[in-house]
Amino acid sequence: MKRIAIDMDEVIADANFRFAEWYTRDHGIEFTHEQLNSKRFSDLLQDDHKYLIKEYVYHDDFFKDLPVMPGCQEVIKDLYDKYEIFITTAAMEFPNSLLPKLDWLGKHFPYISWTNIVFCGDKSIINADYLIDDNVKHFKRFIGQGVLFTASHNHDVVWDVRVNTWDDVRKLLL
Amino acid sequence: MKRIAIDMDEVIADANFRFAEWYTRDHGIEFTHEQLNSKRFSDLLQDDHKYLIKEYVYHDDFFKDLPVMPGCQEVIKDLYDKYEIFITTAAMEFPNSLLPKLDWLGKHFPYISWTNIVFCGDKSIINADYLIDDNVKHFKRFIGQGVLFTASHNHDVVWDVRVNTWDDVRKLLL
Repeated sequence: MKRIAIDMDEVIADANFRFAEWYTRDHGIEFTHEQLNSKRFSDLLQDDHKYLIKEYVYHDDFFKDLPVMPGCQEVIKDLYDKYEIFITTAAMEFPNSLLPKLDWLGKHFPYISWTNIVFCGDKSIINADYLIDDNVKHFKRFIGQGVLFTASHNHDVVWDVRVNTWDDVRKLLL
Repeated sequence: MKRIAIDMDEVIADANFRFAEWYTRDHGIEFTHEQLNSKRFSDLLQDDHKYLIKEYVYHDDFFKDLPVMPGCQEVIKDLYDKYEIFITTAAMEFPNSLLPKLDWLGKHFPYISWTNIVFCGDKSIINADYLIDDNVKHFKRFIGQGVLFTASHNHDVVWDVRVNTWDDVRKLLL
């Protein structure tokens, strides 16, 4: 059975939503869907607000109750019948994310066992056939095929296998 | 550069010490060094105390300030010059262990970056040349060479590459 490793933020969990939500709360500024999808969130902010990115992402509540990315629950459920599924997230950078991420997975993907959840940093440590991730840096030394999941920050990145939506993942792997 | 993945409990962190310490605290019974090294801790307990194992290991304080296994700091420091070192621990089974383990590594192995720490479950997900672990089940589907670190519970396990101490690891890998 082939194995798929799947990233969390911007792939199955919408962390960008939280940035936008908190920025609106703190500064009353709302971004359109098009703005949020076209640029890295930090690039939408005026220079003297860019420090907020770090302040937000290290906050204990940042990773709690993030929205699920559209379509991923249905597609991962179907992939689960044909592949070994592992969730592989570079959570170690944000110790505040460890328990919220585990809770989130238990809530939205209860059938994925704790044995198949990986909190790591450098994803070259992952032994899988595919890695679905929004960050191309993780593909450089990855043993399998990297599948770039389109996110606001990677539109200009060149990579041979790219998916824009979970429907694209279905077409590619099922 | 070849890569070594290293387990935590009973390999670099002495979790057995905590079991013994708390059991003495709660029941006034002390085990000798020989007893602790000869049997799985649960096998030392009378039947109506065996439930304590689960009670202890899921306690928030269980993984805090565990003693460092003898010799591992010196040997890992030397291995670090010649290998990529990753710490790979099946921490997902014990969510209470996640933050204490991260703190412990920061304290005792401050030069090991967050990028090289992996909290996982099924270690067949690990892409490394060697895995030093006290649990042979992790070697079954492991892509590299499993190195069995002797612990009280694995004396009778048959495995082709076994080390009894960190000095043995030095002889094997340096």
